[in-house]
Amino acid sequence: MQHIAHTAVEVIRAKRDGHRLSEEQISWVLGGYTRGEVAEEQMSALAMAVLLRGLDERETADWTRAMVDSGEVVDLTGLERPTVDKHSTGGVGDKITLALTPLVAACGAAVPQLSGRGLGHTGGTLDKLESLPGWRARLSAAELRRNLDEVGAVVCAASERIAPADRKLYALRDVTGTVESIPLIASSIMSKKKAEGTGSLVLDVKCGSGAFMKERGEAALLADTLISIGTATGLRTSALLTSMSTPLGENVGNALEVAEAVRVLRGQGPPDVTELTIALAREMIDHCGLTGVDPEEVLSSGRAHSRWKDIVRAQGGDPDAELPEAAHVRTVPAPATGRLAVLDAYAVGVAASRLGAGRTRKEDEVQHGAGVRCLVKPGERVESGQPLLELHTDTPESFEHALAALEGAHEITDGPVEPDPVVLERRPGARHDDARNGS
Amino acid sequence: MQHIAHTAVEVIRAKRDGHRLSEEQISWVLGGYTRGEVAEEQMSALAMAVLLRGLDERETADWTRAMVDSGEVVDLTGLERPTVDKHSTGGVGDKITLALTPLVAACGAAVPQLSGRGLGHTGGTLDKLESLPGWRARLSAAELRRNLDEVGAVVCAASERIAPADRKLYALRDVTGTVESIPLIASSIMSKKKAEGTGSLVLDVKCGSGAFMKERGEAALLADTLISIGTATGLRTSALLTSMSTPLGENVGNALEVAEAVRVLRGQGPPDVTELTIALAREMIDHCGLTGVDPEEVLSSGRAHSRWKDIVRAQGGDPDAELPEAAHVRTVPAPATGRLAVLDAYAVGVAASRLGAGRTRKEDEVQHGAGVRCLVKPGERVESGQPLLELHTDTPESFEHALAALEGAHEITDGPVEPDPVVLERRPGARHDDARNGS
Repeated sequence: MQHIAHTAVEVIRAKRDGHRLSEEQISWVLGGYTRGEVAEEQMSALAMAVLLRGLDERETADWTRAMVDSGEVVDLTGLERPTVDKHSTGGVGDKITLALTPLVAACGAAVPQLSGRGLGHTGGTLDKLESLPGWRARLSAAELRRNLDEVGAVVCAASERIAPADRKLYALRDVTGTVESIPLIASSIMSKKKAEGTGSLVLDVKCGSGAFMKERGEAALLADTLISIGTATGLRTSALLTSMSTPLGENVGNALEVAEAVRVLRGQGPPDVTELTIALAREMIDHCGLTGVDPEEVLSSGRAHSRWKDIVRAQGGDPDAELPEAAHVRTVPAPATGRLAVLDAYAVGVAASRLGAGRTRKEDEVQHGAGVRCLVKPGERVESGQPLLELHTDTPESFEHALAALEGAHEITDGPVEPDPVVLERRPGARHDDARNGS
Repeated sequence: MQHIAHTAVEVIRAKRDGHRLSEEQISWVLGGYTRGEVAEEQMSALAMAVLLRGLDERETADWTRAMVDSGEVVDLTGLERPTVDKHSTGGVGDKITLALTPLVAACGAAVPQLSGRGLGHTGGTLDKLESLPGWRARLSAAELRRNLDEVGAVVCAASERIAPADRKLYALRDVTGTVESIPLIASSIMSKKKAEGTGSLVLDVKCGSGAFMKERGEAALLADTLISIGTATGLRTSALLTSMSTPLGENVGNALEVAEAVRVLRGQGPPDVTELTIALAREMIDHCGLTGVDPEEVLSSGRAHSRWKDIVRAQGGDPDAELPEAAHVRTVPAPATGRLAVLDAYAVGVAASRLGAGRTRKEDEVQHGAGVRCLVKPGERVESGQPLLELHTDTPESFEHALAALEGAHEITDGPVEPDPVVLERRPGARHDDARNGS
């Protein structure tokens, strides 16, 4: 113990004093942390030193590799189809995975979509899919492989044995004020994706009030850090910077979002959700080298919708079952006539969570029918008194609390409104960039 | 729990982002930490943020007060004599407390000298006094008060109930690379001294290889921070900056240092130890407003020596007993003829500790007879082959390990040598400074 504490202190002091950590130091400290030989209080001091002193590109890649090496790595080699995964940094009304996964699978790729649950103001893909009766988030390794082979996609929970260092560190950062470090955020995301065995990756890096990154510059830096880790660890990666100033689409909440995703798959989805789904699908298909496939055509042909049903059934769900609906609905009327200038993503996310769609603690249950419907989108005209939002919940006592979150969240103007584009910018990965030069 | 974690994270984030903490935040977080409501990993992240972002004067004083308030405060009011304490930041061969305490008591002050044990390369006053058969470091509150009244001094261990926040934080900083923060070092020292109830305080801030502060600028900054806390918390404080590039006096080790202190009390001590003892005594007497007393005269009169015996007896010790001697002694000869230019304090401290005088872990026992005698001091002439050092131990297998620490620790030169003065500088406290203006 004496020797170990001594060495952990040396690593902490090196970073504290602004030095670069060696690959060996990083791999030793994260391995020791996973095994419990480096104590929680030592790792939290190191995390704070990393947050304040930074990690350079090489250190960030080493940190990611050490987290991958702390656990199991899924072997997806030998599948017939090329593998590609999408990761979003999280937003409000972000149901993209639901329609995107069957679309890309229907285009010919295998999509190992390992997902999480909601916490705070953002929802989780697994919570959403659990609105479907019978659907299971937990798959064995054999089921995962079989489903990838047979229906070309899985959407499931990551194994506990994937990147355990990241799992521990993530929980620790949450209670020690060490979340907001781009190298730590980026290595957390990339270590899981790398360990999950995908061959390529497309990132949806969101910015705006409902995203983790509020500022575009920060989001771009995160995107570039993620891509640089991808390059260093041999994972083909590119990123779209997308807007999260207002909720994506119309519905926010678990079953509400599933219903909207099905509308997208039927060709009747809100334009912003459909646009982003197709843009991400193009990136993913491109990474896989699948030429001559047009995701827009695959969507309108109904093949993506049919693939959705296959994927849901392969995980025990009934895609034709009625979706749960909340027992109580209340409408929020527009306070004035004009054009909707602002509908704040963060406020809507908090309101939906308070209505029961989300959780504030990991142990909480979610209400599958709860959430918010945004009946008017920024840029659209609205008459005073016309319904602006619909609040859905099984617990009507939460209405007041949700309405409080929405205080000041919308703004109606007489002047013109120019809503944000959905895709703000494409940040190409290194290899990708080369391939596109001159085109 | 949710609310508490939330608030701890807010305090951590505030300091992380470079903000000043309010008095209320500081008192809440240290109180919560003492009660176990703020977790160790949260406090270590905060300590790292404090180390890298700093605390200003007001925050440092608030931090100190919060640590005082975390436990009991000793009430020394109502004693007949004025109280004054001395604190040294620690060095090699630093036996000053042993002779200084009886000297200042013999001058008419009450000296509540709450002391610690040795760890690493520096010795502890309690370990040294335990060389005296029967002597007890633990006193009840009633004994402490009675001895201060009757013999004018105690040298004893601090109660566990004094500044428990400091005790916890000190242990945490040790394993999390957060020791080297001047506000944290200064508030740790001052919270204990303030809680121990002394009316005034003199600091011996050491600098050089054997001290915690290697650089004079750092030591001066620490001294000024200590004094500023004293001013803010109503504890009259001044400091001497003293040299710790070479061991103080001749002997390093528990019983060896007691023997040397007795020589000082008999007027036969090494000049550097005697000089520093008298300089610190003058500061202390001055703080107490004891005019017309000359510590040099009190020392040469034998009254300090006689008071030493009273103080030792009052804690169960026999001042006339034979001191323990190590079973094995080995001499290190001078490798050349010339003047001793360097005798490195840190190396001698490590060698003494390895011989058995110190401990590397809190649980270790010390050898009372072990240590190093420095037979030649920097500036003195030496002939090749003449004994330079004497190593004392009960465990002769430690000689090699001790000699390894002394590799390169001494330097003999043909040229002139100008040894450091013992007292480098006086850093007066605020009130003191005013009193001396114009003199």
